[in-house]
Amino acid sequence: MDRGEIAVTFQPGGRRVFVLPGTLLLEAAGRAGIVLQNPCGGRGTCGKCRVRILEGDCPPSDAARRVLPAEQIAQGYRLACQSYIRTPLKVEVPLESRLAGIQQILTTHAGRGGVLNPVVTKRHFRLAPPTSEDAVSDVARLGAAVGEPAIPVPLLRALPAFLRAHDWQGTAVVASDRLLALEPGDTTEAAYGVAVDLGTTTLVGTLFDLASGEELAVASALNPQVAFGDDVVSRIWRVRENENGSALEEMQAAAADAVNAAIQDATRQAGVDAGHVYEVVIAGNTTMQQILCGIDPSALGEVPFVHSFDGALTLPAQALGLAVHPGGEVFVFPQIGGFVGGDTVAGMLAAGLDQADGPTLLVDIGTNGEIVLAHDGKLLATSTAAGPAFEGARIVQGMRAAAGAIEKVVIGEDVAFNVIGNTPPVGLCGTALIDAVAEMLRRGLIDAAGRILAADEAPDDLPAALRARLLERDAQPCFLLVPAEDAASGEAICLWQKDVRELQLASGAIRAGINILLRRVGLAPSAVGAVLLAGAFGNFIRRNNARRIGLLPQIPCGRIHFVGNAASLGARLALLSRAERTRAAELARATEHVDLSLDAAFQMEFGEAMMFPEDDVDACDG
Amino acid sequence: MDRGEIAVTFQPGGRRVFVLPGTLLLEAAGRAGIVLQNPCGGRGTCGKCRVRILEGDCPPSDAARRVLPAEQIAQGYRLACQSYIRTPLKVEVPLESRLAGIQQILTTHAGRGGVLNPVVTKRHFRLAPPTSEDAVSDVARLGAAVGEPAIPVPLLRALPAFLRAHDWQGTAVVASDRLLALEPGDTTEAAYGVAVDLGTTTLVGTLFDLASGEELAVASALNPQVAFGDDVVSRIWRVRENENGSALEEMQAAAADAVNAAIQDATRQAGVDAGHVYEVVIAGNTTMQQILCGIDPSALGEVPFVHSFDGALTLPAQALGLAVHPGGEVFVFPQIGGFVGGDTVAGMLAAGLDQADGPTLLVDIGTNGEIVLAHDGKLLATSTAAGPAFEGARIVQGMRAAAGAIEKVVIGEDVAFNVIGNTPPVGLCGTALIDAVAEMLRRGLIDAAGRILAADEAPDDLPAALRARLLERDAQPCFLLVPAEDAASGEAICLWQKDVRELQLASGAIRAGINILLRRVGLAPSAVGAVLLAGAFGNFIRRNNARRIGLLPQIPCGRIHFVGNAASLGARLALLSRAERTRAAELARATEHVDLSLDAAFQMEFGEAMMFPEDDVDACDG
Repeated sequence: MDRGEIAVTFQPGGRRVFVLPGTLLLEAAGRAGIVLQNPCGGRGTCGKCRVRILEGDCPPSDAARRVLPAEQIAQGYRLACQSYIRTPLKVEVPLESRLAGIQQILTTHAGRGGVLNPVVTKRHFRLAPPTSEDAVSDVARLGAAVGEPAIPVPLLRALPAFLRAHDWQGTAVVASDRLLALEPGDTTEAAYGVAVDLGTTTLVGTLFDLASGEELAVASALNPQVAFGDDVVSRIWRVRENENGSALEEMQAAAADAVNAAIQDATRQAGVDAGHVYEVVIAGNTTMQQILCGIDPSALGEVPFVHSFDGALTLPAQALGLAVHPGGEVFVFPQIGGFVGGDTVAGMLAAGLDQADGPTLLVDIGTNGEIVLAHDGKLLATSTAAGPAFEGARIVQGMRAAAGAIEKVVIGEDVAFNVIGNTPPVGLCGTALIDAVAEMLRRGLIDAAGRILAADEAPDDLPAALRARLLERDAQPCFLLVPAEDAASGEAICLWQKDVRELQLASGAIRAGINILLRRVGLAPSAVGAVLLAGAFGNFIRRNNARRIGLLPQIPCGRIHFVGNAASLGARLALLSRAERTRAAELARATEHVDLSLDAAFQMEFGEAMMFPEDDVDACDG
Repeated sequence: MDRGEIAVTFQPGGRRVFVLPGTLLLEAAGRAGIVLQNPCGGRGTCGKCRVRILEGDCPPSDAARRVLPAEQIAQGYRLACQSYIRTPLKVEVPLESRLAGIQQILTTHAGRGGVLNPVVTKRHFRLAPPTSEDAVSDVARLGAAVGEPAIPVPLLRALPAFLRAHDWQGTAVVASDRLLALEPGDTTEAAYGVAVDLGTTTLVGTLFDLASGEELAVASALNPQVAFGDDVVSRIWRVRENENGSALEEMQAAAADAVNAAIQDATRQAGVDAGHVYEVVIAGNTTMQQILCGIDPSALGEVPFVHSFDGALTLPAQALGLAVHPGGEVFVFPQIGGFVGGDTVAGMLAAGLDQADGPTLLVDIGTNGEIVLAHDGKLLATSTAAGPAFEGARIVQGMRAAAGAIEKVVIGEDVAFNVIGNTPPVGLCGTALIDAVAEMLRRGLIDAAGRILAADEAPDDLPAALRARLLERDAQPCFLLVPAEDAASGEAICLWQKDVRELQLASGAIRAGINILLRRVGLAPSAVGAVLLAGAFGNFIRRNNARRIGLLPQIPCGRIHFVGNAASLGARLALLSRAERTRAAELARATEHVDLSLDAAFQMEFGEAMMFPEDDVDACDG
């Protein structure tokens, strides 16, 4: 495309993203899934987002010169919130610059103390063998050394022989107050856990060393439940319509298999034994969590969409068929409602919504949009059915964000676009849809009601190249994005009138949800202090375009932040810290679930939100 | 026998015992397993042991006239501690006259409020079906109605369908904070539990209605582990010598089968479904408890005799193979040491040793004698290997207390005896052994060292009939109890010199244990305020004879009480009351375990205790 994107690589970890010139380094980090500290709100005063430029050109900002010692400036340290990307960069992110939980946890790894406090711990013990003077029971002898955990039947039975066969020494694996395993020798170094973001389409498992807090490997897998339906609703119906329960069993097994595949992959990458994985933390939407637990999701398929459980579950890994240590456990995130699940709670945790400073919206855009508003000590959450338009479905020439998808559209003198994988374009994905409509709105090619203008209705000053793209085909207005000769299939790629309607429906649903929550607390959209965009889709959206189509409120781009895969981050926090698990429970409990279908104002809000804003507040790049 | 025994029947329950004329009604009740309140120590001042004579002649004592209203005297009420049995009686025991726990529990059944507070309770629930305005999770909806129990995986999976299939109604079975089962309809009336006294030889299961506290049936069974050895030590060795673990598995299964047989028998008697039994409470010695739990008892077979666990266990009934409700649980009594087990703790609970008023000894005489001393807020417990003499083993013509066993011997002008089942005698059991030796000591036929005198050494005033019984056969002194013509086998039954030695060893071991505990707290034997005799054997012993041979301290018989099958009583208390379970835990924790083998004074005490006392303090009948 015309304006070339710039590669930015982050260390440690080596994650790379491509951004437009002028993108804030803070944002680029967010797109790479690295959430930086930002307590001053990006004003360049706190110095917490300090990063070090290893390669590339990035002159220090004035703010950086004020906040950082000259010595650090000389070493390449900059403030990410004040540094605009102009050249390819290689950037080192210090541990302490990362957001709260994870940052603190990782600093522990670096030996600086902190909150690494996983539920599962290993304790090496050397007991004094019993004597006549000290003939306390085996359980009491072990308990005194390892904190008196409750001992399940199999270990109770194994204990006497274990102690005597191993010279009264070994390692106890303890989860909170439960003994999970006994191992000969000192195996305290081999304690692993996996945090799983269990998505409807894909799942991501991150393997951690529980002793050090170190992230060892990341593995992702396609959720094989896709075979049972693309979205949660079709999977729920698959279970409902299957009377003998085999569909639920099959889907449960499929989900477990996928988690197992990710665990296997991650442990293989890290060269560790999956038998030393003692805990798996799951954060997923309500349907995915229930299916993985083997709990019938049928009630989620009809009004009033009742979820099975709300508090977090701690279950034996064996009961779910997970291939970790036989005594291992699964922690399943608390849920708020039928469509506000563990992934949202995990996201709230990662985003620190309980500590939000000013009115803050957490928005995860997908087939189902989840929206949480934190304001004045109150937490409101809702979900809204955006439909699959953002995933490229129901779009005439839409597709998922895969190779061949146009993922970005810029309309200048003519149309420029970017294709994933740099191949000839096949279709357009959700971000390109938003871009195209936003840019056409700016050029006056679509009116506020969403109508694609005919060539003769377009503004007089429109470049001819663009006017030529306003077509009518098959009796339907459309905008030519890619001429036939440039397209992979040899067939032109257009944005169709129908596509704009689909986007209006999807965007209107999300925005109506946002507006309803704001109404509940009496806030104007412009008063929102921060919008945190979470999830895969949210991280690739262009903020100004999302705002231009009305998907997000009319607030400066500086208040719209990418927070990466917040659900995955929340799952990691819960894996590594009991305190974070407690916070997650408190967040879930404290959150009021808003059912939009019960709100009298929803239809009106939805109708209004389907209309595009007449104008936009400012411009920003990305 | 010469002096005919008198039948006394107790209501409710219809238990019947046979006692000598002149026996206190309080004692007779104890032999029937009915432990009466006795806070004044039998002085006839408190009126708590009030019973009502339904049939038979039992004139009111002076004490009864003082303590009870004339109207009650006219209705037949008497003080059991002041009433001596002269004629066959049918006696009604008011609920409030029974000892503490059980009494209070049973009064609840009678509708008078009290401490019936079983761990397992059933709660019928009718939930409001979810609506859009009230779409809380199924777990939260149920939890609000039944106290938010933890829900195990199978029930979590069953819950959504259960609630919807049964119109949001049903019955929850909750154990403390755990959901055990969900049942359609209102099944609150069908909640049962079984208290099991798991003995080495026999086990007794008592079925209770947990809703009312009512005792429904009692069933006993032979412990089929007898096939693996008569006593615990032989069973421990059976496991130790079996390397592949099959002996433990077989013994575990045998114990579970026996418990199942008792449960089946009791539920059949009561006409209830074993599937409605949700809890089984087990009180047994350490070896029996460990084997039933499937925990290797090998360490109990060698110094320092280490038990596996001390705190009470709560285990899934399925893990032990018990045929009750699949969600049912087993509560296993806390243990104090390798040979001071759950049965002793249960006995301490039933005897109320934590509330003992004055120095109190609880003594359970068996192959292994367990002794607990409560004094001045301190609790000491020990066990002592009495050997099988009291069970008739190692006695030349000894036998168990079964049909054909001489169970009582009285020596007047001649020898009189009582045979179980009124058949020709086959041999003598433990009580007869004690009786015979005690009576011979009184007659000067055995000296303090335990030597049976020759006919020509006996006192001059000895009746000829008795002198003729002092024989020497096979070069060994013996005393003829039953001439050949009266014996079942046609062979004379004698007490042999060797038998006296065996009794000295057994009795000396128990008494040395008692003395060591008394020494520890600096008490003289004569200062013991109460001896509580527990267990099957203890309840059939003649107190004056036990004292005469030195088995018990030289204290008035009025201070020696039969407390019945205290282990079984304790198991019942724990089944019916959480508070009693807490008390059991506290008793076990508070008790100091004394290992006699470590006490420097033990050998000396044992040697001294083997010598019979020169004289006796008083005489009493039974």
